Amino acid sequence: MEQYQKRRAELYTWMARNSVAVVVLEDTEGRRDPAIRYFSGHPADAILIMTITGHSVLCPWDENLAQSVAYVDVIVPYTEFGRNPVTAVTGITERISVPEHSRIEIPDRTPYPMFLRYVEALFGYDVLCRDNGVGTEIARMRAHKDPDELARIERACAITNEIILTIERQLKSGRIKTESDVAFLIERESRAAGAEGTGFETLAAGPARSFGIHAFPPCTQAEFPGKGLSILDFGIKFEGYTSDVTLTIASGDLSPAQEKQIKLMEKAYAAALELYQPGKSTREASLKVDEIFHKAKRTMPHALGHGIGLEAHEGPAIRNREDNEWVFEPGMVVTLEPGLYHASVGGCRLENDVLITETGNRVLTRAKVIRI
Amino acid sequence: MEQYQKRRAELYTWMARNSVAVVVLEDTEGRRDPAIRYFSGHPADAILIMTITGHSVLCPWDENLAQSVAYVDVIVPYTEFGRNPVTAVTGITERISVPEHSRIEIPDRTPYPMFLRYVEALFGYDVLCRDNGVGTEIARMRAHKDPDELARIERACAITNEIILTIERQLKSGRIKTESDVAFLIERESRAAGAEGTGFETLAAGPARSFGIHAFPPCTQAEFPGKGLSILDFGIKFEGYTSDVTLTIASGDLSPAQEKQIKLMEKAYAAALELYQPGKSTREASLKVDEIFHKAKRTMPHALGHGIGLEAHEGPAIRNREDNEWVFEPGMVVTLEPGLYHASVGGCRLENDVLITETGNRVLTRAKVIRI
Repeated sequence: MEQYQKRRAELYTWMARNSVAVVVLEDTEGRRDPAIRYFSGHPADAILIMTITGHSVLCPWDENLAQSVAYVDVIVPYTEFGRNPVTAVTGITERISVPEHSRIEIPDRTPYPMFLRYVEALFGYDVLCRDNGVGTEIARMRAHKDPDELARIERACAITNEIILTIERQLKSGRIKTESDVAFLIERESRAAGAEGTGFETLAAGPARSFGIHAFPPCTQAEFPGKGLSILDFGIKFEGYTSDVTLTIASGDLSPAQEKQIKLMEKAYAAALELYQPGKSTREASLKVDEIFHKAKRTMPHALGHGIGLEAHEGPAIRNREDNEWVFEPGMVVTLEPGLYHASVGGCRLENDVLITETGNRVLTRAKVIRI
Repeated sequence: MEQYQKRRAELYTWMARNSVAVVVLEDTEGRRDPAIRYFSGHPADAILIMTITGHSVLCPWDENLAQSVAYVDVIVPYTEFGRNPVTAVTGITERISVPEHSRIEIPDRTPYPMFLRYVEALFGYDVLCRDNGVGTEIARMRAHKDPDELARIERACAITNEIILTIERQLKSGRIKTESDVAFLIERESRAAGAEGTGFETLAAGPARSFGIHAFPPCTQAEFPGKGLSILDFGIKFEGYTSDVTLTIASGDLSPAQEKQIKLMEKAYAAALELYQPGKSTREASLKVDEIFHKAKRTMPHALGHGIGLEAHEGPAIRNREDNEWVFEPGMVVTLEPGLYHASVGGCRLENDVLITETGNRVLTRAKVIRI
């Protein structure tokens, strides 16, 4: 499949420029890395090795699966190396005769004790494990969606929009009675529409617990919606790519404090969307929202947004931290999700997915505040 | 809540014995660590700091949630530290006046670049990040379930058993037609029974794809069960604790190769269960299964089992690797899950949850090969 070759070719170029002979990626329980899928089509549980000479070797946990879905040059079963990542990388490095003293870059999320084992096993090589190395380059690449990715995300968002309409209808007709009801509805509708399911666990928080950013557990048999503010945060996954939206449901007569909180959130949403423009720093949008909330003596306890794609959270980050250097660029697909939470007033969050275009942005999803 | 204090007290003792002044645990996206929940009741997204002087400080992402569910001495909002783990640990260390040159142990999964930042920020302290340190001690503690944990796991298993009966009934009556049908049935029944839901994504693989260890995607609209071998792998989560079982569904007249494969798996299952005994090494059971399969010229591409609890996979490991030093001990709850997979024959796996007792074992779940 062309797109995987194209993505690898871009990485090989980066490797040549940065004198990195071998890049190692790993996806395993506890250290998930969808970059494996991004570069090979293989979904999970594997080591992917890419060389400056333009070769890709996949070492999968499930060889049968790899044979049917992975597009790489060579597949070597993980069992050959006792399912040990350090042994596998060392073994493959030997087989493909990587010259001594070459630079081998392992994932920047490699735990320190494991890093030490790599260094020992790869004696004679220069083992890199660093911030601002290949991990940053891959995050940068993945933050810019290519046409194949955009098509999948647009499908995920279209299905999401249909489901939002269904939810609104069923909320108004009173068919949805509990948090679980709405979570099941989303699961069912997503699969009926040809999606893989949800991109992450649906978070449905009725008025009793909408004050939490991410209510725990994600959904219960509690009343939903009930009088007051409820939050519904969900995403639909289509061919690996997920949407991510949040609805606020405002039910019954709201208190002045509840009305004020919603208005404040909507004001921040509109102001931030103006700043979702190519060339603008993502921090600027985030600081704008902070400013609006601070004036009203409120704080937002989470980031303003993030990229979406193979993960529900990926680059770019959209937050106020000083070390955030991301800039909005065409082809990025990001969330915009201001939220406010208060132990007695309840919580509200409005989240949509936004494509950054050459000239501005296009909002792909239609989440909103639903009043019933 | 008593159990959290008791667990922390056990850790404080270990810290005293090992001269570790401060233990840092972190749960965040990409580095989940249920040990936070184990020691505090707080489910996720937080830093937990425990000191040799017997104090616990929780630094949660969601302060409102922590106020309602966490049992610790002090809660400090993460926002005070710009939501940066290194800043938070450094700041809290200062506030509680940890003496200079003390040993501060950070998680063994800390990425190498982040380890370097900790070392720089905690100048004057001895920063530990190691295998066989506190991470291993906590894994050891968590592998032995206390009465509170056992009660929750037994509930999870009881609900699982009810659902297995329902599945069998509906398979026989023909009500289940697709992989998604059975996945939804499990979700629905689990919540109706008071569970939090499933402990991991249900994996339903009809005959067309049961050859994969973990079919991808986990379930589709494909026929289930169809003529031949289907696999159904699921877990039910009750108050944080999950079961983990796998059924094989054998439908229609099987080929001799299919019959042979199932018999071989059942033989391995029975032989291994004999070895699930207190005092025996877990590797022994795993090697026994290898031996049985090798005699038939087959290989199992995954481990024989693992502990279950707050995670679907936790200690002890039950596998053939030479570095596996786990021994079965009373109070452990583990899976036994021999499986065989073949591109044309299809796959089969039988997985049950087993409590190791003082005198042997007790199988808590009733997964089996269902013939229809």
